[in-house]
Amino acid sequence: MKKLSLRTRVITGTVAVAALGAGTFGAVSANASAPEAAAPAAVRSDSSDQNLQQSTHLTAAAAQKAAQATLDAAKKENQRVSVAVVDRNGNTILTVRGDGAGPQAYEAAEKKAFTAVSWNAPTSELVKRLEDAPTLKDIPGTLFLGGGAPVTAKDAPIAGIGVAGAPSGDLDEKFAQAGVAALGK
Amino acid sequence: MKKLSLRTRVITGTVAVAALGAGTFGAVSANASAPEAAAPAAVRSDSSDQNLQQSTHLTAAAAQKAAQATLDAAKKENQRVSVAVVDRNGNTILTVRGDGAGPQAYEAAEKKAFTAVSWNAPTSELVKRLEDAPTLKDIPGTLFLGGGAPVTAKDAPIAGIGVAGAPSGDLDEKFAQAGVAALGK
Amino acid sequence: MKKLSLRTRVITGTVAVAALGAGTFGAVSANASAPEAAAPAAVRSDSSDQNLQQSTHLTAAAAQKAAQATLDAAKKENQRVSVAVVDRNGNTILTVRGDGAGPQAYEAAEKKAFTAVSWNAPTSELVKRLEDAPTLKDIPGTLFLGGGAPVTAKDAPIAGIGVAGAPSGDLDEKFAQAGVAALGK
Amino acid sequence: MKKLSLRTRVITGTVAVAALGAGTFGAVSANASAPEAAAPAAVRSDSSDQNLQQSTHLTAAAAQKAAQATLDAAKKENQRVSVAVVDRNGNTILTVRGDGAGPQAYEAAEKKAFTAVSWNAPTSELVKRLEDAPTLKDIPGTLFLGGGAPVTAKDAPIAGIGVAGAPSGDLDEKFAQAGVAALGK
Amino acid sequence: MKKLSLRTRVITGTVAVAALGAGTFGAVSANASAPEAAAPAAVRSDSSDQNLQQSTHLTAAAAQKAAQATLDAAKKENQRVSVAVVDRNGNTILTVRGDGAGPQAYEAAEKKAFTAVSWNAPTSELVKRLEDAPTLKDIPGTLFLGGGAPVTAKDAPIAGIGVAGAPSGDLDEKFAQAGVAALGK
Amino acid sequence: MKKLSLRTRVITGTVAVAALGAGTFGAVSANASAPEAAAPAAVRSDSSDQNLQQSTHLTAAAAQKAAQATLDAAKKENQRVSVAVVDRNGNTILTVRGDGAGPQAYEAAEKKAFTAVSWNAPTSELVKRLEDAPTLKDIPGTLFLGGGAPVTAKDAPIAGIGVAGAPSGDLDEKFAQAGVAALGK
Amino acid sequence: MKKLSLRTRVITGTVAVAALGAGTFGAVSANASAPEAAAPAAVRSDSSDQNLQQSTHLTAAAAQKAAQATLDAAKKENQRVSVAVVDRNGNTILTVRGDGAGPQAYEAAEKKAFTAVSWNAPTSELVKRLEDAPTLKDIPGTLFLGGGAPVTAKDAPIAGIGVAGAPSGDLDEKFAQAGVAALGK
Amino acid sequence: MKKLSLRTRVITGTVAVAALGAGTFGAVSANASAPEAAAPAAVRSDSSDQNLQQSTHLTAAAAQKAAQATLDAAKKENQRVSVAVVDRNGNTILTVRGDGAGPQAYEAAEKKAFTAVSWNAPTSELVKRLEDAPTLKDIPGTLFLGGGAPVTAKDAPIAGIGVAGAPSGDLDEKFAQAGVAALGK
Repeated sequence: MKKLSLRTRVITGTVAVAALGAGTFGAVSANASAPEAAAPAAVRSDSSDQNLQQSTHLTAAAAQKAAQATLDAAKKENQRVSVAVVDRNGNTILTVRGDGAGPQAYEAAEKKAFTAVSWNAPTSELVKRLEDAPTLKDIPGTLFLGGGAPVTAKDAPIAGIGVAGAPSGDLDEKFAQAGVAALGK
Repeated sequence: MKKLSLRTRVITGTVAVAALGAGTFGAVSANASAPEAAAPAAVRSDSSDQNLQQSTHLTAAAAQKAAQATLDAAKKENQRVSVAVVDRNGNTILTVRGDGAGPQAYEAAEKKAFTAVSWNAPTSELVKRLEDAPTLKDIPGTLFLGGGAPVTAKDAPIAGIGVAGAPSGDLDEKFAQAGVAALGK
Repeated sequence: MKKLSLRTRVITGTVAVAALGAGTFGAVSANASAPEAAAPAAVRSDSSDQNLQQSTHLTAAAAQKAAQATLDAAKKENQRVSVAVVDRNGNTILTVRGDGAGPQAYEAAEKKAFTAVSWNAPTSELVKRLEDAPTLKDIPGTLFLGGGAPVTAKDAPIAGIGVAGAPSGDLDEKFAQAGVAALGK
Repeated sequence: MKKLSLRTRVITGTVAVAALGAGTFGAVSANASAPEAAAPAAVRSDSSDQNLQQSTHLTAAAAQKAAQATLDAAKKENQRVSVAVVDRNGNTILTVRGDGAGPQAYEAAEKKAFTAVSWNAPTSELVKRLEDAPTLKDIPGTLFLGGGAPVTAKDAPIAGIGVAGAPSGDLDEKFAQAGVAALGK
Repeated sequence: MKKLSLRTRVITGTVAVAALGAGTFGAVSANASAPEAAAPAAVRSDSSDQNLQQSTHLTAAAAQKAAQATLDAAKKENQRVSVAVVDRNGNTILTVRGDGAGPQAYEAAEKKAFTAVSWNAPTSELVKRLEDAPTLKDIPGTLFLGGGAPVTAKDAPIAGIGVAGAPSGDLDEKFAQAGVAALGK
Repeated sequence: MKKLSLRTRVITGTVAVAALGAGTFGAVSANASAPEAAAPAAVRSDSSDQNLQQSTHLTAAAAQKAAQATLDAAKKENQRVSVAVVDRNGNTILTVRGDGAGPQAYEAAEKKAFTAVSWNAPTSELVKRLEDAPTLKDIPGTLFLGGGAPVTAKDAPIAGIGVAGAPSGDLDEKFAQAGVAALGK
Repeated sequence: MKKLSLRTRVITGTVAVAALGAGTFGAVSANASAPEAAAPAAVRSDSSDQNLQQSTHLTAAAAQKAAQATLDAAKKENQRVSVAVVDRNGNTILTVRGDGAGPQAYEAAEKKAFTAVSWNAPTSELVKRLEDAPTLKDIPGTLFLGGGAPVTAKDAPIAGIGVAGAPSGDLDEKFAQAGVAALGK
Repeated sequence: MKKLSLRTRVITGTVAVAALGAGTFGAVSANASAPEAAAPAAVRSDSSDQNLQQSTHLTAAAAQKAAQATLDAAKKENQRVSVAVVDRNGNTILTVRGDGAGPQAYEAAEKKAFTAVSWNAPTSELVKRLEDAPTLKDIPGTLFLGGGAPVTAKDAPIAGIGVAGAPSGDLDEKFAQAGVAALGK
């Protein structure tokens, strides 16, 4: 089991405050008109730092920036595509159904993004792995077809960008890579 | 859009190294016998720190520890339950189908955990919100029934523990809280 | 059967050219490396204008603009939400999982948007209809909970914006309305 | 981003009136006995024309006409088939389960129609693309099997007709093409 | 176990010939280019008549006729609806997504039709049963909302017609009943 | 459109009475304690005979007889299998999870039965068709694997029997054929 | 953790032989023509007895006997119903779609059986619990409607029998209880 | 039909008591605050022993022990994996989403475990069977990819352990086998 060092633990606390706001989160998280009654405070105690780890994510704003760069690149070549950004946890964090893109492109983009972030490689590369392991493509959520590109931080995968709708997977992937490139700035 | 401060950015790098290993992640992440061919290095560039945020998670070991505490508490009262731990992203990170627990308990536990972490409150509290907003319970993935408890770090929700199978939701939730308590140590 | 007038038919052709490009669409729509072989031209003939109707949609760019206005409005009140835009056809055209929004918010936002565009009314209004017709909420794809707002063109519904994650549906809907307002400019 | 010209904008308004009725749509769109309460008028404002695009669809009557031509063609050859018409948005707009058609034909027809409109090509052509890109067929909603034919307007795809149940995909597609041909009249 | 009388058995044979064609069905039912190889004739033997029962269905043509009458009735009152016809087996045999109908109407119509044929009563009547048995509406596939009407033959249910999209369930059901009435002619 | 002859129409009535009981069906079809209120008699009128067709089904008792023969055949060879019988409409009419059969066998049996009745051929034969049309197996609901056998009446398919769990598809199909054979008696 | 006593351990072995055959199971469990290659024997070692527990199930033959008694009881009262038997693990072990039963009855029966075995009580009793805990019915797989009855061994639940299709849940449950009674003989 | 011998019947009773507790199960199995009303005792009678069979399962504690051994083995080689344990009934009894494992690994592990226990062989062996029976992999729930290992008791399969996330299926399976080995102690 990975245990964070003491130093990391201290950092963790700092990050948590920065990322989640000054301890007010618990009080505002409901989704109904009713204000949350006084919390059952005695029972709720914070998790000990040794039980915690951190993960790195794109901000929603960054995902939007990448998507825009992707759509711009496609538009420049008169291609109609849909785009999706998927987190390292496998959760979709952004989708845009491009104007005039085929209906199959929406879900295809999402699955390409999922695949790219899962193996931290462009889906055009991953397709080649099917020669040795053809059933890889039977893993739920995946699509082994060019058009997905991984996003990394310190070389570790943090997201995938998936594009679909252009006449070839290579073209789709070129646009996805334009989205990745926009995140390096 | 939330932008991390410079200080946070520096921290981010450090955490990423600690959490994900020394830059080797990208090279080992495949799930097939075929080694990854030389990566398309030119295109892949790390995301800029301003595009990143951090989130805090339970380790898998911590989830197991909490689940064990939950099951022990149930066993002490001769109850047969199932338990689940769900991340703040909504992803299940652990499930245990308890010996002799009813078949409905497995998925009920998962949904209670999801509900607790979504609103950062015990599900026994959340049930009361249905008086004012009865359709809250129609949100996919939720179950508004006692037995779910949130796990927090710096008062922010990071996970939910869900328990099902005991004769009452209150009893289920007592066991879930035992799991939460184990994480404070 | 609705038949478009002659005048409409002429217009239809014009719009189609503007919207879909100069007849090149058919040639570029594949999603594979293989170029499309010579089309089976004899069989494929254009549909007669009398068989056609037009529908109005938000552009993807407009959806992004609305989503941004929505997220900005939420940020101004320190709320963490997810947002979705759904077409009058019921297809999702944009989603953004907001930073720090609860995991339940992503799909809730999508369903609120679907509901608002289906009945062309804010979901806070639609909730009231459940008093007379409580099973309306059993229609697949819907969520009768404040936070969805319709987008109209010439008073006809063309899209819905859905928001979830704030402490109340009213607050969610306020942000959704900010997105709608951005489209009036 | 595609922006409609001023001229197009004017046209858009005209079409909208023709297609959706004289501004009464918002008032009649509910699906419950309860009349819609006074609308929250201040907030609801029409979307600006620059945010809009048009798309062309088959009317429901045209889809029925095409389906009838398809079924007639099949009957003439003593074949029992099911037929489906799918919109360019990927939404099914008509299905008919033909008398005596096998149970697999209903959903197969729907997927063939989806596939044909997605790539604007007959599915018998699309099957050939699998030689170069075999994983195309893993895109959700598709079926790469003869029997689907695209419907176009100004050479752009607006719908797909799918047929299944005959002893060969070629025969299925012949019937689908009969449906397409009926729309050219 | 119900056993058909000798007389019925004779009739059965006659009907089967009329409904399914002159014994050629087995030979033509494939859906691929490959002709069926010589059948494994020794093993395949017809089921004994005592093991058989008959059920009555609408023809596809009748379903289309009913749908047209439904849509005509709606058009006469300027309503935009979708319609579905479901068999006594619970299988959808026809759907039409009406021009301008809300996106929620398509699946709602299908479920109303299913519900009407399941209990052989209009869904506006069935809604009333929820007073005594509110969980009836939790049965998969059902929607207890006005707009579904049963079709009978000799007082036994053989199909349901479902309509959705009008401002009230009563109006939807009026149109569905127009479809039923068209079948009595 | 197929129209039944006058003679058939008379027969139809007779069969309906035999199969469905003496007109009492409508009155007893509810699934709740509440008695059906006086039926809306004016609107409900029987469908005209010209709109009707008949289909032939196995009785539930026959399906049970066939399943028993299948299980007996398997037991005789010390094989543990599951069995399913699927109607020509594609609806499952019987399943038995055999003692000690692997968990994959239950759903595999159901899909084999569906496949056999869809194409009116043993699935061991249908597998061969994949050589010419490999994507046939992508049709939803199907499984192209030995173990499914069609049941016919007057050479037309009326049901499929599917078996799974034995070490080979051939063995599974042998047991399924034993079930078919039992129906010829 | 429950640990079986030494005596139980010995028994376990005996039962396993009786239930699963003389050690040949591992060798014959494939579902393909290819014989299993020599097993990777070194790695496969039996689980230690302390890691094992036993559970009690109905045999498939017993499930069939119970289903027959259920259908006979319904037939005696001229009711058309479907029946399902579900294991304590929540897996369906038998279904029969009764002649003439409504299409909603098949899946309703399955869910009633699941519910009865989950809480070891007739579903007519369980409905009453909704007064205090109305969201119990939101647990996936359940249906809180009369017609399900538990089967016990030594007072512990081992299966549920569910019936649907009669005019009331009470009647459905009477037939289910007839099935239970048949197992006591 | 398998009938347990007299001796087995006696044993069955003993085991049931040991496994399920002394007749108190029925009274405590609810999942709501409401105590179960007096049971409808007359109807509920125990199933006769001749209708019963036993099956052997891993305890939840054993599943946790195996999972821990699996994760330890992976950690020793610096691999990030997820693990699942699936019962011979096909029900998942444990999952752990490993720290840093790709998002595809969670569900892949579950399916590998299901596959291994279904055919009582390592999935690396089962992949080879696809040469002769390529459609085996179309059986729902399965994944024919190295990383799944069966757990046996008296040579009969009782569970499967599935691992995913390492760069090769062989490596995944090595970790799964470590889990199996831990159960032999």
